[in-house]
Amino acid sequence: MNNQDLVNPDQKIISTHFDQEGYEGFASENLKSLVTALEAGQVSVVKGMLDHFRAQDIASILEQLTREERKWLFDILPKPLDAEIFAYLAVPVREEILPLLDSETLADVIRRLESDDAIDLLEDLTDGQKQEILQRVAPQARKILEEGLNYPEQSAGRLMQRELVAIPVNWTVGETIDYLRAKEDLPKDFYDFFLVDESNKPVGVVPLSRAMRNKRVVRLADIMDQDLDLIPVDMNREEVAYLFRKYALVSAPVVSDDGRLIGVITVDDVVNIIDAAAAEDLLKLGGVRASEFYRSIKQTTFSRWVWLAINLFTSIFASLIIDNFAETIQRQVALAVLMPLIASMGMNAGTQTITVAVRALAVHDLKLTNQWRFFIKELIVSLINGCVFALVAVLIAWGWFGDWIIGLVFGVAMFSTLLIAAVVGSLVPIFLERWKIDPADSSVVLVTTVTDMVAFASFLGLAYLIL
Amino acid sequence: MNNQDLVNPDQKIISTHFDQEGYEGFASENLKSLVTALEAGQVSVVKGMLDHFRAQDIASILEQLTREERKWLFDILPKPLDAEIFAYLAVPVREEILPLLDSETLADVIRRLESDDAIDLLEDLTDGQKQEILQRVAPQARKILEEGLNYPEQSAGRLMQRELVAIPVNWTVGETIDYLRAKEDLPKDFYDFFLVDESNKPVGVVPLSRAMRNKRVVRLADIMDQDLDLIPVDMNREEVAYLFRKYALVSAPVVSDDGRLIGVITVDDVVNIIDAAAAEDLLKLGGVRASEFYRSIKQTTFSRWVWLAINLFTSIFASLIIDNFAETIQRQVALAVLMPLIASMGMNAGTQTITVAVRALAVHDLKLTNQWRFFIKELIVSLINGCVFALVAVLIAWGWFGDWIIGLVFGVAMFSTLLIAAVVGSLVPIFLERWKIDPADSSVVLVTTVTDMVAFASFLGLAYLIL
Repeated sequence: MNNQDLVNPDQKIISTHFDQEGYEGFASENLKSLVTALEAGQVSVVKGMLDHFRAQDIASILEQLTREERKWLFDILPKPLDAEIFAYLAVPVREEILPLLDSETLADVIRRLESDDAIDLLEDLTDGQKQEILQRVAPQARKILEEGLNYPEQSAGRLMQRELVAIPVNWTVGETIDYLRAKEDLPKDFYDFFLVDESNKPVGVVPLSRAMRNKRVVRLADIMDQDLDLIPVDMNREEVAYLFRKYALVSAPVVSDDGRLIGVITVDDVVNIIDAAAAEDLLKLGGVRASEFYRSIKQTTFSRWVWLAINLFTSIFASLIIDNFAETIQRQVALAVLMPLIASMGMNAGTQTITVAVRALAVHDLKLTNQWRFFIKELIVSLINGCVFALVAVLIAWGWFGDWIIGLVFGVAMFSTLLIAAVVGSLVPIFLERWKIDPADSSVVLVTTVTDMVAFASFLGLAYLIL
Repeated sequence: MNNQDLVNPDQKIISTHFDQEGYEGFASENLKSLVTALEAGQVSVVKGMLDHFRAQDIASILEQLTREERKWLFDILPKPLDAEIFAYLAVPVREEILPLLDSETLADVIRRLESDDAIDLLEDLTDGQKQEILQRVAPQARKILEEGLNYPEQSAGRLMQRELVAIPVNWTVGETIDYLRAKEDLPKDFYDFFLVDESNKPVGVVPLSRAMRNKRVVRLADIMDQDLDLIPVDMNREEVAYLFRKYALVSAPVVSDDGRLIGVITVDDVVNIIDAAAAEDLLKLGGVRASEFYRSIKQTTFSRWVWLAINLFTSIFASLIIDNFAETIQRQVALAVLMPLIASMGMNAGTQTITVAVRALAVHDLKLTNQWRFFIKELIVSLINGCVFALVAVLIAWGWFGDWIIGLVFGVAMFSTLLIAAVVGSLVPIFLERWKIDPADSSVVLVTTVTDMVAFASFLGLAYLIL
């Protein structure tokens, strides 16, 4: 593919993206052509290519570039800037780009974004900048943004759009259609009509498709669903995402403390949170801070450093136990050879149980009602696997060192290590959750420390007594 | 809360679910009341409570119960069965319940489900059962189901609904509304009109909200978007989910090889896949098979067993290295005390890098264009942290054993271990992905094995040379 293809205005780059075979390949090809053009400083070629990308693609491309390339590309983006680009940029990259904008450009971007994205963007600014930008926004929009900024950061209030279509419950289909045709400033897309009473409290919902299928004289109240999924404005957004997923919602009304309709959350706002919530657990269990991929080396080094330091500190406890049995090891060096095998197995078994527990807690599969059953299941699984691997351990040690006693000690230690890994691995996440500590954050360190200590203590202690 | 509250037909249990403060608490309370009533065998009380739950809630409740309770509850569910329950049940639980249904009930459930859910359910049955059920379905629906079953299991073809609203591109808003009002068998919910030409190829899309805001005489062709996100029927469903998330799609048309419109995928079908894709990486990195929470003890034991066995096997390589230096350890037992510290740090650093890489690969942040940059970044981070922790290591070993030489050896080993963890931890996932092996599945075992071996070899080898 050459640049000529890319700047051909008749070509629909976006639909080609969806070509199964070449999706990744094409995106990369496209990007490579862009980088080549960037490096050659071919402004007009790059500009021609940019016209064919959507906001999401421009955001991806900006993320992929180095700091210098990014600045250069950003400068030649078509003006006025597509405000949506800022809604899709990874936060570290966005933080890097925002200082490149003057206040008027930034205010213009804020004005053109939907309220939830605008608030998200304002949040990245200093208080001084925030005030300056807000002064440049029309009073009515400013009021909405200021209210939004007052909701807690992880709440439904931040997530919701204030632009919504609320219809008096006594209207007919025809009245509603006439209203829509006349009204100018409606949200870009909406999927449901929320019906409200005189005090602006939601009383029912009619999906657009249902309204369209009914005759003009039909009253909305006669075709509405009354089972409303009301989201309180201060509900945590991960909880919101969970409810959307569980009940397959497309949009849901957000209500204030006194039950009035104040906003709407649509599924496209929630899709990213569903992904981010699962990804956050993944990253935390792996000992990294959420989404550090685009963070600077300095930030990454520091965030890794913290977990490594905690890990070093807790590992010392295991080493202290080994130190206690230094003489036993000196007498029987086979112990030192086999120690890492037990530690590694305990670590592995513990991580398995933690992973299942953390995930099940996150999606509300693991609740008060079945915690006890989960624990018993993990216990039985570990008893069975403990027996199997104890037997294997005996055989390995015997085959290796030709000593049945060492084999026996190794086997018993293997059994108790797998058992303790399951017990601690299932109880720690459950209790952390109960004490409102994020189990994804702290479980691994706690469990491996305990498991290692028990592993070494049982192995070396037994060896000390028997050998 | 007592059961009386729950059977009161005026009470809206579902909206109470959304009460922030008590969401989890209430759900559990509710469930506990149900379990109490179940245990007391109060059929009428339980039945009264069941009327107030939605299909998703009934599915959750069935999942939470023991095998016996589940069978009992299932028997007293209101008939005819709410087909949707089967669309929401976790697969292992569904597999357990399906044999309880006779063919006619099952055929009835299949008839009432949307095609994508029906195909998903049919897939759980044996070929014989499948044929028997399909015979009981009307010919037209049967044809759709049979076609669906022919698409690859993870493909867009399985995910799509065949029920869609395709409108000839030359129609007006008024014609479309009249068609909707007259037509009987439309999908329950839809959000977009897909416009097709005479050969049934999609040429544009009009969101329902836009159609509603235009006058009856307006031609759909004049208000349609031509930038269509066409999904090829054989696209992998994780790729579909990624595209929905990236481009904030609500629905997208699925096309056959020759470009004809054959189905539609809506965002609610995709939400669960987005969650499942991220969760699968989480579980695999933790050494467990996807979604084993509701699997039987037998299945769980076996799936855990596989990874533990692989881990035991690979750990033996590290032990072999230690065995090579048995005499050195016997001479200087401090080495045995410090060994686990290095192994644990290498493991931790390796896991951090793997986790970032696996996640970035999954969401296409890590591509051919920036792999080299990712590797360099990981290298620099590990060089910095390597220096920091080498220094700490020297101090620990010196403080503990009062021996500068051991400290030095320990420090050098710590540095090389963190370095190798970053190198292997970043390269292994990238190359596995390139070779089409799932990096979430195999990276951890490969990387820890190499890291452990390098850790022990550098530590003990250096000690052998110097001490």
